[in-house]
Amino acid sequence: MAEIDIEISEVAPRDGLQSIAPIMPTAAKKTWLSALAAAGIPEIEVGSFVPARLLPQLADTAELVAHTRVLAGPKVAVLVPNLRGAENAVKAGADKITLPLSVSETHSLRNVNRTHAQMLEEARRIAELIGTLPPTRRPKFEGSLSTAFGCTLEGEVPESRVVELAEALMAAGCDEVGLSDTTGYANPVQVKRLTRKVWAAVGRERLTGIHLHNTRGQGLANALAAVDVGLTTVDASMGGIGGCPTAPGASGNIVTEDLVFLLEAMGLRTGIDFEALLAARRVLAEALPEVPLYGFTPDAGLPKTFAPANA
Amino acid sequence: MAEIDIEISEVAPRDGLQSIAPIMPTAAKKTWLSALAAAGIPEIEVGSFVPARLLPQLADTAELVAHTRVLAGPKVAVLVPNLRGAENAVKAGADKITLPLSVSETHSLRNVNRTHAQMLEEARRIAELIGTLPPTRRPKFEGSLSTAFGCTLEGEVPESRVVELAEALMAAGCDEVGLSDTTGYANPVQVKRLTRKVWAAVGRERLTGIHLHNTRGQGLANALAAVDVGLTTVDASMGGIGGCPTAPGASGNIVTEDLVFLLEAMGLRTGIDFEALLAARRVLAEALPEVPLYGFTPDAGLPKTFAPANA
Repeated sequence: MAEIDIEISEVAPRDGLQSIAPIMPTAAKKTWLSALAAAGIPEIEVGSFVPARLLPQLADTAELVAHTRVLAGPKVAVLVPNLRGAENAVKAGADKITLPLSVSETHSLRNVNRTHAQMLEEARRIAELIGTLPPTRRPKFEGSLSTAFGCTLEGEVPESRVVELAEALMAAGCDEVGLSDTTGYANPVQVKRLTRKVWAAVGRERLTGIHLHNTRGQGLANALAAVDVGLTTVDASMGGIGGCPTAPGASGNIVTEDLVFLLEAMGLRTGIDFEALLAARRVLAEALPEVPLYGFTPDAGLPKTFAPANA
Repeated sequence: MAEIDIEISEVAPRDGLQSIAPIMPTAAKKTWLSALAAAGIPEIEVGSFVPARLLPQLADTAELVAHTRVLAGPKVAVLVPNLRGAENAVKAGADKITLPLSVSETHSLRNVNRTHAQMLEEARRIAELIGTLPPTRRPKFEGSLSTAFGCTLEGEVPESRVVELAEALMAAGCDEVGLSDTTGYANPVQVKRLTRKVWAAVGRERLTGIHLHNTRGQGLANALAAVDVGLTTVDASMGGIGGCPTAPGASGNIVTEDLVFLLEAMGLRTGIDFEALLAARRVLAEALPEVPLYGFTPDAGLPKTFAPANA
């Protein structure tokens, strides 16, 4: 793969689809994942290993992991809510496993019906499971600190609590932690401050990624702050689809297409080809014609002056 | 007025309305301008002194200047394309006169049917006119460098040309210059670099403001860069209405409501009350029900954790 400066993790197949009612057929998902890979997306969160009765949209996650892991390019990430999910992720052959830990315990109970202590216990068990695998087969294990910038249920989330839980996740055996603005509450100053606080506690190499929502239109400004402070992985969703069904009012991931333009125009290499990305967007639009796709750059087109960052 | 850190210049009454077909009745405009003033907007561009046959929407600019200048709070800005417009602006009592000078000469000819040399001559005449007024009655005179970040007609706009025209405008007698991303081409790195180049040429106090479009969704990221580098005035448009009718594909100013949230959440005082701003938005929505209003924060509401910057 060409060298890249900022890694975009495409989360639409998981975070996007999970809040959309019409089920996207597995065959269409595969075509879409292949198109995303062809566009040079370096990481794709292809699904979530949750019981099919809870999220029928993501019932085909194992099949999608199998499909995507043989494509050239992308790392294959999945979300898991517990050890059982992690077992399935390992079996399917995922490259990365993300366990969400909501800093707001109220949201944690609502989202996965578990307390912090219970989730940290799951993290320990998952780390143990991964430890039993041959070193070359071990997926990367991330603990994602959701509602890290505030919660629609609890309101303010103390930054000291974010730091404590980051430390607890590392102690439980995670390889790294991520910050997630589940509710669209974050602002650029907060993004930088909280990132530095977590770095001070767990080390810079243990926090490289951020997950932002565009609920209040601040997504790209926050992404700019994240890149400015030195984070190197930014989650985004094609067409801005997605949100969080259990955090009221939390809708809309940042739009991959607009983020690619932002970064490449600033001279930061993403490894992503914009025209091929638009082709992947067309696959999504055709498969889910009733779902609105967001993003300005796809409508406006790239500027005449646009030159991709030097690869 | 309370002390503010970043001055938002509300341009919807001029830049927004000029690209909208349905004529907003003068009485409704007055109600709206009063609501904007009541929200604490520190500067409002209320219209443009152009011939009524060219822009019937803005034919009532003189009346709106007269209405707004007696409201408590906002400075009253107007756009003028030439000396004749400036004479009318002075007669009406505007606090600030902006003359656009498109760095792309092709766009200048399309927009105001004048070359750079002709526009600079207008600038000299306007400065002369202002010089004849008693010092306390002199409006501030800004030259606005439109298409400064690239042009949909000419493509790349050399930064050296932006700097030269900034110097030429100062030599012609402008008090200050502004940078305008007419086409939505700008990126944050470019915003900072071009600002510093113009500062180096004309002095920091001669360039304080920027006008950004959201054509490719980059508006708030660019505004963040502008504030980071040290610019202190940012144009924005309520509901994101507006664009430029003579630069194809250039639509959408940045949304005042989302910008206020961005700045205040970062601890930067705008002097604007968000609830009163939403009341002004309702006035606009009721007066122009057929015009789509953009912005995420009005729909999502402010975060539970939001606290305005300390005034």
